[in-house]
Amino acid sequence: MASKSRSQAVRIGLAGLGNVGLGVYKNLEKNAGLLRERTGFKLEVSCVAVRDPKKPRDPSVSKTRILNGWRELAADPEVDIVVELIGGTTEAFELVCAALRAKKPVVTGNKALLAERGQELFKLAEENGVPIYFEAAVAGGIPIIQTVQEGFVGNAIRSIHGIINGTCNYILTRMAAQGVSYWSALAEAQQHGFAEADPTLDVSGWDAAHKAIILASLSYGFWIKPEDVHVEGIQNVSLADIQFADRLGYTVKLLSVIRADEKGLVEVRTQPSLVPKTHVLASVSGVYNAIVVNGDIVGETLFYGKGAGQDPTSSSVISDLAEAAATIVYGPRHSGFVPHGLYGKSKPVDETVSRYFLRLQVDDQPGVLARVATVLGNRQIGISSVMQPDEETAGTTPLILMLDDAPLGAVRGAIEEIAALDAVREKPAWLRVETMKE
Amino acid sequence: MASKSRSQAVRIGLAGLGNVGLGVYKNLEKNAGLLRERTGFKLEVSCVAVRDPKKPRDPSVSKTRILNGWRELAADPEVDIVVELIGGTTEAFELVCAALRAKKPVVTGNKALLAERGQELFKLAEENGVPIYFEAAVAGGIPIIQTVQEGFVGNAIRSIHGIINGTCNYILTRMAAQGVSYWSALAEAQQHGFAEADPTLDVSGWDAAHKAIILASLSYGFWIKPEDVHVEGIQNVSLADIQFADRLGYTVKLLSVIRADEKGLVEVRTQPSLVPKTHVLASVSGVYNAIVVNGDIVGETLFYGKGAGQDPTSSSVISDLAEAAATIVYGPRHSGFVPHGLYGKSKPVDETVSRYFLRLQVDDQPGVLARVATVLGNRQIGISSVMQPDEETAGTTPLILMLDDAPLGAVRGAIEEIAALDAVREKPAWLRVETMKE
Repeated sequence: MASKSRSQAVRIGLAGLGNVGLGVYKNLEKNAGLLRERTGFKLEVSCVAVRDPKKPRDPSVSKTRILNGWRELAADPEVDIVVELIGGTTEAFELVCAALRAKKPVVTGNKALLAERGQELFKLAEENGVPIYFEAAVAGGIPIIQTVQEGFVGNAIRSIHGIINGTCNYILTRMAAQGVSYWSALAEAQQHGFAEADPTLDVSGWDAAHKAIILASLSYGFWIKPEDVHVEGIQNVSLADIQFADRLGYTVKLLSVIRADEKGLVEVRTQPSLVPKTHVLASVSGVYNAIVVNGDIVGETLFYGKGAGQDPTSSSVISDLAEAAATIVYGPRHSGFVPHGLYGKSKPVDETVSRYFLRLQVDDQPGVLARVATVLGNRQIGISSVMQPDEETAGTTPLILMLDDAPLGAVRGAIEEIAALDAVREKPAWLRVETMKE
Repeated sequence: MASKSRSQAVRIGLAGLGNVGLGVYKNLEKNAGLLRERTGFKLEVSCVAVRDPKKPRDPSVSKTRILNGWRELAADPEVDIVVELIGGTTEAFELVCAALRAKKPVVTGNKALLAERGQELFKLAEENGVPIYFEAAVAGGIPIIQTVQEGFVGNAIRSIHGIINGTCNYILTRMAAQGVSYWSALAEAQQHGFAEADPTLDVSGWDAAHKAIILASLSYGFWIKPEDVHVEGIQNVSLADIQFADRLGYTVKLLSVIRADEKGLVEVRTQPSLVPKTHVLASVSGVYNAIVVNGDIVGETLFYGKGAGQDPTSSSVISDLAEAAATIVYGPRHSGFVPHGLYGKSKPVDETVSRYFLRLQVDDQPGVLARVATVLGNRQIGISSVMQPDEETAGTTPLILMLDDAPLGAVRGAIEEIAALDAVREKPAWLRVETMKE
C-alpha cells in the first residue's frame, strides 16, 4: 500500500458513474473543505472509469480524466484507492481482485458481490495486506457495518431484525395506506424512481438477503451460503393479507432476521412478516430502512435512516474513503474487527421456528375448521387464534389462523396437506409472524 | 505508546469499580473468547484502583490486583491502557493527564470532564501522541460518537436533536403516563435506581448538556463554553404543562439541540421541549435514549437504545478498549477524525430562535387576551394558536398560547412584561416547542 504525507492528496479511482458514483463525486467536491479540515488530508478523484467513455456526462465531472473501462483503473499509477460502483458480480469481482493484487484499498457498495464472493475477496485482501470497506453495501447512509463490527465488538449478537430494502418497504407501505394492489404500488414506485424497470432483485427479497448475509458474517464470523438462506419476496403478498394482518394488530414488512440459537446455529431469513404495530419497526414507512440489533451487553438498539439513494449511499462511501485514505496517510490499522469463525454453522431452514399467519379461502360450511385444526394438531402445531370474518363470497369465506411457534418444515407440510382438503378453495396464503420478543 | 505482538495480552488498568467499572470487568470476562476471536488479541484487566481498598468487593474481582487509589495506576508498568471511571472533574482530570503523559491511551465515560476540560485534555493527548476514547460518555451503549466522528465524516451536520438523559426521560414519561407530579415521579425513579439520591446533575439538565457539548465539539470542531449553553432542567415542568401540551398534540421531553445557522453560528441547548407526537422522538419512553442526526448528505437518521446502566455503558467502554488495544497491537491510527475549528463560534443564547408554549393563569374576565397579545405584538412575536379551556378556579382560568418562531431574548422580555400584568395571577410557565422541521 502506498504511503503519503498529509500534504499530498489521496487519489481516488472511481469505477462506475451511475447514481451513487455521481453522488460520491459531487459530495466529495461539495464538502471538500470540511473533509480536509476533519481528516487532515485531501481526497481527490483522480480518474473515473466508465463503460462507454463517449456517453454524455454530467458537467460536474468534466475536469476529470475518463478511463475507457475499468481494466486500466486498478493499475493506474495515479490511483491510491479503488471505488467499485459498477455493480454485478463478474466484472466487479475482477476489478476488486485486480485492485487488491495492486495493493490498493477497495471501497465498494456491492452487496451481491460480497454476499456471493465475500469469502474469496476477504481472503485475497488479507493475503495482500489491504482492506476492503463496504459500509455502503447495507442500509445506505446508516453506519450499521461499523456499528456491528466495532461499536458492538464486545457483544455476542443475539439477533438482528431489519427492514433493509426501501423498494419493498415503499410498496408495502403504499399497499397498506392506499389499499392498492401489489402491481399498482409497484408501478407507483417505478414512477417515483424507487423501483427499477426490472424490479426482480428487490421484490424477490434477494437484495435484502444479500445484506442479511453480510450482517450475519459480521455477527457470527462465517459466510453463510446463499442456498442456506430462506428468501421470500413480496410479489405474492396480497392486499387481503395486509388488511387481515391489520385487523389482528400487525403490519406486513419485508423483514430480514439474523439470529443464533442456544447451540450457536445461525438462521438468516428474508421474508414478508407480520410485525406488531406496537413495535417501532412497524412504523418505518416508505423508502426508509431500520435495523434492530440485540446484543447481549448493549440490549436492544435501533438504527434508522434512508436506506438508498444517491446522497445517503455516498455518505457511507465517503466515510469509507476517509478511513481508507487514513490508512495510507497515517499507516495501516486493523481493517475493522472481523470474527474468524467462532460459530460457523447455519441452521437448516426447515428447523427454523416461528409463528405464522395462515389465510385460507374455504367452503362456508360447518366442520372445515375442525379438519384444518386436525391437520395442524397431528403435526404438533398449536393455534393461538382463529378469525372467521363474515365475508361470504360465492359459498366460500376467509378463515384466518394465527399459528404458535413451530418449525418451518412442519408448517410447510401441514399447509400442503391443508391445501389438498376439498373444502379449501384457493392456494393458502401464509406469512411469518415476528413477535420481536426474545 | 507500548507495542505488542498479538500473542501478548493487552493490559488494562481500571480506575473506579462502581456500577460501570464492575460491568466492564464482568463483561470482559464473560465475552473474553468472543473478543479474542474478533480482535485477534487478549484484553486483560491487570489491576483495579479504588478509593478504599478495604471496602468489600464483588467476588468476581477477587483475582485482580487492587491498587490503593488511582495515583499508582498511570505509572504501573503492567498497565497498557487506563480506563477512567472514577467520575468528577478533579481527580479524574489528574488521572487522565498522568496517563497521557505516560503515553498510555485513555478510555473514559466522563462527560463532565470532557465538556469542561476536553480542550486541555485533547491538546495533551495530541502532544503525547496517544488517543482518548469516550464512546461511553454519550448515550450509553449507542455508538453515537463513532457515528458522528467517522460514519458521517463527509457530512456537514445540520442539526442533532437528542433525548440523552434517561433519568429525566423516565420522570417525564411517568408524569405523562400516570398523571403524577414531578416529585412523585422522581421518588419512583429513585426507588428503581434510575435516579441518584442527589439527582441534581440529571434533573438540572446539566448531564444532558455535557453530552450535547461533546456532540457539538465533534460536529462543529470547537469546544463550546458551558456558559454559552442554554440549560434548563425539568424541576419546574408541571403536570399541567404536560397535559395541555398533550391536548395540543405534543409530548414534553428534555431535548438537547445542537445546530448551526446559515452563518455558521452554533447553538447548543438543553431544555424541556414540546415534541410533536407524530415524531418518533415523542415515543421514546422511560430510560431509553434517542438521537436524531441530520447531515447534509445522509439526511435524517436516528439512533436508539439504552442510554445508561451497567451493561449498555460497558458495551461502549469495551468497544473503546478494543480500539485502543488495536493501536497498541497493530500500530497507531488516526484517533478518530477530529475537526480543527472549521466553524468555531457560538450563537448568543438570546438570539436563538424557536417557537414557544406559554401557559398563564389569568383573571377570568374580558380583555386579558388582548393585553397579552399586545405585549407580544409590540415585540414582533406572533401567536399561532390560543386555547382557553373552560376551567375556571376562584375567578382565574388557564390561557395557553403557542407562539411563532422568535428569538429567546424577545420572548423572555415579553414574558417578564406579561408576568407583571395585573390580570396574570401566577408565574407564567413557558416551554420551547421543537417542530423537528428544518
